[in-house]
Amino acid sequence: MRFDHVGVATRDAADLADRFCGLLGATIPHEETFDGMRIVFLELDEGRYFELLEPVAGGTIADYLDREGAGIHHVALATDDLPAALDRARDRDVDLVDEEPRPGAWGHDVAFLHPRSTGGVLVEFVEH
Amino acid sequence: MRFDHVGVATRDAADLADRFCGLLGATIPHEETFDGMRIVFLELDEGRYFELLEPVAGGTIADYLDREGAGIHHVALATDDLPAALDRARDRDVDLVDEEPRPGAWGHDVAFLHPRSTGGVLVEFVEH
Repeated sequence: MRFDHVGVATRDAADLADRFCGLLGATIPHEETFDGMRIVFLELDEGRYFELLEPVAGGTIADYLDREGAGIHHVALATDDLPAALDRARDRDVDLVDEEPRPGAWGHDVAFLHPRSTGGVLVEFVEH
Repeated sequence: MRFDHVGVATRDAADLADRFCGLLGATIPHEETFDGMRIVFLELDEGRYFELLEPVAGGTIADYLDREGAGIHHVALATDDLPAALDRARDRDVDLVDEEPRPGAWGHDVAFLHPRSTGGVLVEFVEH
């Protein structure tokens, strides 16, 4: 299990990407429109990213922005065996948002844990 | 510049540390009481941490918990030259919470950027 990315909800991913690239020396290895969001990955150090999430058609991130405003949305931890990581979470009575891996951005498999089980932190497990 | 840690505001750092250690296989390389907070560092992969922040005597994190509830508070990025990183931020008209490095947890120098300049993300620069 390793840090993979910090997900950030924003109303303008292109503008925020510009800021972070200039300020932090980050690069943009990947961007796409996926699941109703404009998504820009910024690589900071090797294999560690900010994932900027801009809603283009309503949905979860649009609701989050309306409710909470822009800012950090989740933290994603990479695993080599996502089903095993979910089994370990279930064994510890962690509530899951996704009971099974589902397709996420950048072609990765993802599953979210419910923040009620993780101290209010929205944790994503991701398998590349 | 590299990812260093994700800061988490919590009302019970010991309980959350137990959960994260069990769920994620994290270890506890350091804990201390600093600046009115019980602080527990969880190491996930080498040199990457969760920093759990539990207020013991009011202060910024207590206010944050009252206002926002428990969850992700900030993201910290490590640099080998904190004054230069702050100069670069100033050159880009980024508003700073700390104009100069100050002593932070674990004996590190830290400085926070104002989230109004970073898309609502509270960014900490840290120099070990």
